[in-house]
Amino acid sequence: MKMSSIKEIGIGMLGYEFMGKAHTNALIKMPIFFYPPPIKPKLIALYGRKKERVMEASLRYGYKRYYTDWEALVKDREVEVIDNGLPNHLHKEPCILAAEEGKHVICEKPLAMNSEEAEEMYKAVQRAKVKHMVAFNYRFIPAIILAKKFIEEGYIGKILQFRAVYLQEWVMNPNFPMVWRLKREFSGSGALGDLGSHIIDLARFFVGEIDSVIGLTKTFIKERPLAEEPNKKDLVDVDDAFIALIKFKDGAIGSVEASRFSAGRKNYQRIEIQGDEGTILFNLERLNELEVYTNKDKENRRGFKNILVTEKVHPFYDRWWPHGHTIGWEHTFVHELYHFFDCLANDKPIEPWGATFYDGLRNNQIMDAILKSANTGKWERAY
Amino acid sequence: MKMSSIKEIGIGMLGYEFMGKAHTNALIKMPIFFYPPPIKPKLIALYGRKKERVMEASLRYGYKRYYTDWEALVKDREVEVIDNGLPNHLHKEPCILAAEEGKHVICEKPLAMNSEEAEEMYKAVQRAKVKHMVAFNYRFIPAIILAKKFIEEGYIGKILQFRAVYLQEWVMNPNFPMVWRLKREFSGSGALGDLGSHIIDLARFFVGEIDSVIGLTKTFIKERPLAEEPNKKDLVDVDDAFIALIKFKDGAIGSVEASRFSAGRKNYQRIEIQGDEGTILFNLERLNELEVYTNKDKENRRGFKNILVTEKVHPFYDRWWPHGHTIGWEHTFVHELYHFFDCLANDKPIEPWGATFYDGLRNNQIMDAILKSANTGKWERAY
Amino acid sequence: MKMSSIKEIGIGMLGYEFMGKAHTNALIKMPIFFYPPPIKPKLIALYGRKKERVMEASLRYGYKRYYTDWEALVKDREVEVIDNGLPNHLHKEPCILAAEEGKHVICEKPLAMNSEEAEEMYKAVQRAKVKHMVAFNYRFIPAIILAKKFIEEGYIGKILQFRAVYLQEWVMNPNFPMVWRLKREFSGSGALGDLGSHIIDLARFFVGEIDSVIGLTKTFIKERPLAEEPNKKDLVDVDDAFIALIKFKDGAIGSVEASRFSAGRKNYQRIEIQGDEGTILFNLERLNELEVYTNKDKENRRGFKNILVTEKVHPFYDRWWPHGHTIGWEHTFVHELYHFFDCLANDKPIEPWGATFYDGLRNNQIMDAILKSANTGKWERAY
Amino acid sequence: MKMSSIKEIGIGMLGYEFMGKAHTNALIKMPIFFYPPPIKPKLIALYGRKKERVMEASLRYGYKRYYTDWEALVKDREVEVIDNGLPNHLHKEPCILAAEEGKHVICEKPLAMNSEEAEEMYKAVQRAKVKHMVAFNYRFIPAIILAKKFIEEGYIGKILQFRAVYLQEWVMNPNFPMVWRLKREFSGSGALGDLGSHIIDLARFFVGEIDSVIGLTKTFIKERPLAEEPNKKDLVDVDDAFIALIKFKDGAIGSVEASRFSAGRKNYQRIEIQGDEGTILFNLERLNELEVYTNKDKENRRGFKNILVTEKVHPFYDRWWPHGHTIGWEHTFVHELYHFFDCLANDKPIEPWGATFYDGLRNNQIMDAILKSANTGKWERAY
Repeated sequence: MKMSSIKEIGIGMLGYEFMGKAHTNALIKMPIFFYPPPIKPKLIALYGRKKERVMEASLRYGYKRYYTDWEALVKDREVEVIDNGLPNHLHKEPCILAAEEGKHVICEKPLAMNSEEAEEMYKAVQRAKVKHMVAFNYRFIPAIILAKKFIEEGYIGKILQFRAVYLQEWVMNPNFPMVWRLKREFSGSGALGDLGSHIIDLARFFVGEIDSVIGLTKTFIKERPLAEEPNKKDLVDVDDAFIALIKFKDGAIGSVEASRFSAGRKNYQRIEIQGDEGTILFNLERLNELEVYTNKDKENRRGFKNILVTEKVHPFYDRWWPHGHTIGWEHTFVHELYHFFDCLANDKPIEPWGATFYDGLRNNQIMDAILKSANTGKWERAY
Repeated sequence: MKMSSIKEIGIGMLGYEFMGKAHTNALIKMPIFFYPPPIKPKLIALYGRKKERVMEASLRYGYKRYYTDWEALVKDREVEVIDNGLPNHLHKEPCILAAEEGKHVICEKPLAMNSEEAEEMYKAVQRAKVKHMVAFNYRFIPAIILAKKFIEEGYIGKILQFRAVYLQEWVMNPNFPMVWRLKREFSGSGALGDLGSHIIDLARFFVGEIDSVIGLTKTFIKERPLAEEPNKKDLVDVDDAFIALIKFKDGAIGSVEASRFSAGRKNYQRIEIQGDEGTILFNLERLNELEVYTNKDKENRRGFKNILVTEKVHPFYDRWWPHGHTIGWEHTFVHELYHFFDCLANDKPIEPWGATFYDGLRNNQIMDAILKSANTGKWERAY
Repeated sequence: MKMSSIKEIGIGMLGYEFMGKAHTNALIKMPIFFYPPPIKPKLIALYGRKKERVMEASLRYGYKRYYTDWEALVKDREVEVIDNGLPNHLHKEPCILAAEEGKHVICEKPLAMNSEEAEEMYKAVQRAKVKHMVAFNYRFIPAIILAKKFIEEGYIGKILQFRAVYLQEWVMNPNFPMVWRLKREFSGSGALGDLGSHIIDLARFFVGEIDSVIGLTKTFIKERPLAEEPNKKDLVDVDDAFIALIKFKDGAIGSVEASRFSAGRKNYQRIEIQGDEGTILFNLERLNELEVYTNKDKENRRGFKNILVTEKVHPFYDRWWPHGHTIGWEHTFVHELYHFFDCLANDKPIEPWGATFYDGLRNNQIMDAILKSANTGKWERAY
Repeated sequence: MKMSSIKEIGIGMLGYEFMGKAHTNALIKMPIFFYPPPIKPKLIALYGRKKERVMEASLRYGYKRYYTDWEALVKDREVEVIDNGLPNHLHKEPCILAAEEGKHVICEKPLAMNSEEAEEMYKAVQRAKVKHMVAFNYRFIPAIILAKKFIEEGYIGKILQFRAVYLQEWVMNPNFPMVWRLKREFSGSGALGDLGSHIIDLARFFVGEIDSVIGLTKTFIKERPLAEEPNKKDLVDVDDAFIALIKFKDGAIGSVEASRFSAGRKNYQRIEIQGDEGTILFNLERLNELEVYTNKDKENRRGFKNILVTEKVHPFYDRWWPHGHTIGWEHTFVHELYHFFDCLANDKPIEPWGATFYDGLRNNQIMDAILKSANTGKWERAY
């Protein structure tokens, strides 16, 4: 195929910091490593609130232009896909407008501040018949995809137990200042929405639907200094940590937990999936590895096997490097966006490998149920 | 000191299988490795139901005589200490009789079938003013003692989160037959009392008192063939697995979970204790090791440190081998019984390092609250 | 700084496969993540033997033009830096020509087929006074840099022992066909030059100069089918594996070993550096981690600490992601090339952090001594 | 079987410290855990130089009497088996006398100070037709036996490479005093005979005979204070560390290394065995585990499997505890002595699972060749 014959599609990116950077990096790398790409993303426009900084970022990343008004970006004629990496309170409106404008949309997780918002968003993209994806990027780790394949092949039997924690430590210092992730009006919730949403998504991905939950939430530090005025304090009104028990629809049981107060845990997402014939373990801090135990092995040869998921036969790895030449966290976005553009160009469904806005809605519903149960002190249905 | 001058004390052992073997082995080794012993245990009598087998075991282990009637053993004049390793339904009566006979008593965990029984037992030993210990042997792993010392030194700061699982897999095969541990009338509960009791004890040991709990229980396989008549089936009426959320009195949060359906987990007791300045990790399958993270380390030198707890400066290790020459599971019993005899001979309190019948009572109360919450679907007070 | 004000420099890349891809990817990413870059690489020209493929690659990577004649590329007016990722037998001539043309030069490792060639190359770049670097990219892993810093701070005391293996498995299948890396005329040597050169470089980097060596080499499979004509076989005339003992100038001892016949080892470069006060361990398959033991810790707190080298305070990491959001193998090239351009733009020396052609020469001299000793069966001086 | 009908055999133990304690502990435990024992060891006599201490030890361990003259012990009528745990310079004479007296003999490793002594000893036991074993206890670790079984089953194919290190750190402090292990007249050699002998034995056990070697030795600290007179210093005349390359008879290659100057390594014996279809790894500090990689696994399921070698189906484990209830270093001696008594009672050969004096002789020959090569700087034949 000739490079010149590859179709292009215009991208409008909302946000240039953490997620904007991760997504843009992926957009640049994708057509190099997944060559020829199903369609080539063209960096049209970048949105940010602060003119100086968004201008600089647009030059740095290679976007044709920048906006300080997201509405204008969404309506930009050349923009055909909206990639929304803004804080949670700015997920709903831009996504809905994008859908209304007939543009495909990728939105960072959690989809919304709560399930009501999520439902509106889901309805909007359905109505508009655009492609929609929630950026649950950990679904696109080769080890995670391999785990899913193992489960589907029956390698660990019927799933009985699911156990996941997502632990970080970045706000443990009492002097760490107030940020949007610590205010409900911008984030919806704390560790739950930020970290918990990932493992709740993976619970559904690996095990299936969740029937009911009971959870507790905890805010260890209730006030934070303002970043600009350290003498003034502001109230933290979201959870620093949560834990919830889960009953799955098919009878499996489990738990999910997230915390921003786990000293030493930098980005520790640990998942254990236990079936009646084996167990699968995953740790995000060692994302190139997957551990598997199966009773199908001969009696004196059973043990946890550590698979370095970097072989050509492993998901996506033929596009990267020779085995053992590991990839990092950023590569999850390349896979994710490749999947999105592959679905777009070849009219494939985003699910089951990617998460749609429906998955995002279910995710918000489950989180709402956890928050509710933390108040009622009782099990709550996850619908 | 001359060997001949070492005082002796007569031991009556109830049970000769798993726990009877582990305790007897420890009684034999203790005076060799902890020489001179505070007092020397003399193997007087062994109890078992089956005459042939208890007779053989008594010869094998070196007991002077055997009984098939536990009451007779407890009343044997030469027996001064009762070590009760019988199934849970046979904890209460022999222990109470022992106390009434003025004999010191060590009882396997869980102390009792439920908190009512435990309370009777605790009152009996208090009334009789005898020494009493519940054999929570994992308190006597050098790594666990070291962890406790670290916490007391403030090495990880104030504890915020506690997370423990105790996972095994020995009943996963549906053909595994009915045993006493799967019947409530003999065991009181399933994974909860057998495995959960250990980590609940360690939760109190490390963090402090538990305020309230909410748990779920699950029985994955509800019927089992009888060992002698595999065509007949009997009902499993205890939990194969449980998970509970914990609120500690001082504000810490946590969870405990035990399962006999965790494929690949042989004896996996994993404990994570997280303070506001660090984290401690322990894994029973690697009991010579302890992992610690502390923010007190310099900024670019922080990481989880794996301490091989086998140095002369580590708890009990000066009695064993050169460093790196590891010990195993059985050594926990040597330490535990050494502690008991040291307290006995030198009139020291069993607590805080050992667990008394009071700790056993609290343990049963917490387990009762978990079982209750599994029925009510609500948080229950742990008193 | 304005993007437009960033100076640019023209790059000519030799080779588009493995190394060409890795270097190009790094050239593209560097100015995004190390913004503003010291100087901005401009992708001018790409060389490859096969027209169709190099043309495609040049489009894919974004080079302005391509060449099938490396001499023409080297002489291209717009090309100011030559990055040579060709097979070993094509290192010498293009690098020397580049120097003669007054162009800066980066060359893949090993620098040359042997020390005679290396010496010519070193003399050429010295004569021309151009910047020169050998692409020992593992020097630019954050964990490796941190290890070097620790050593310089005296964290593990005076170095006594160095132990390194670099193990792979990619040619174990007897049907794996003949490739240039298995023919001496193209590669100079086998596992020694390919893998051993890296750990020999790190031996010098961490410990210092090598006095003498004795080694053995082994070729396990002596004939290979031709890739295009599998019925015909060709002779493997390089080592599949080598092991060598090392005496360092300052009295330290050690060993280096590389093998392409280590089943299960994908890209396993394991380094152990032991000083009189501590030990440092590194494993390339987990390149975000560094393990350190020091006697400076308190007596009962000693253990191997696993540092996840992803904090802002760690080398280069402020340019990437939040801690725990790991990087992969490809990032070593970004750091390496950033260093090169930083030295170029700001007239800093490549050494000691980067490897110069002098380091490349020493590397070849040591490898020559190992090969010689494998023939003589005696210790050989490494000069 | 009745206990009373179990035949007994009289044991004379030479030495009561480290090895005397480890062997006596095993003699006491063996008949309890390996019940009914093939023959029951009866603790007759214990030898030591210092009357007070050997008397105390004999009481502590339960020996009937003690000697301060080893010759008298060897000739004691009730002593039928000599277990020699004395320093290396006292291996030869007592073992030869034991053989001449018609007594079976177990001798600690290394068998002798050098191969000349070893040859005399081997001839003596052959002449006397007594049972003889060198106490290479690591052959009796369940994981090591399992590794051997795997190799014999072809699980990792034909062995190509063997790599072993045995690292400790106990003499790193310059103030650590002179002990017999640091003087050639008592020990024969340093790290080589003490630690290296084990891994050289395992090299032969796993791979087969060794053809030739080249080694280097190093003494990092050349003088030590006397234990009793710290102001006086004595010369260390043995190796603190050695490294040797190995050519095996069948074409495999490898290396062995031991050091007493490896900070953080407490008792780190690491073994890697690589065949053309897989790899086996073992680490003595985690002796309950064995790691295995095999190409026989399906392509996307390959990885290093960590087997917790504690199942009933694993070597010796049916005699101990439920799986996951780990054993420690001392258990190797129970297995070893059980094997010896089983061979004795049932007239089985000690080899191939145990090491005979012939294996001890070969071990000394290989070590002599390593020492010679360290002087000549050339490869030396290992015969």
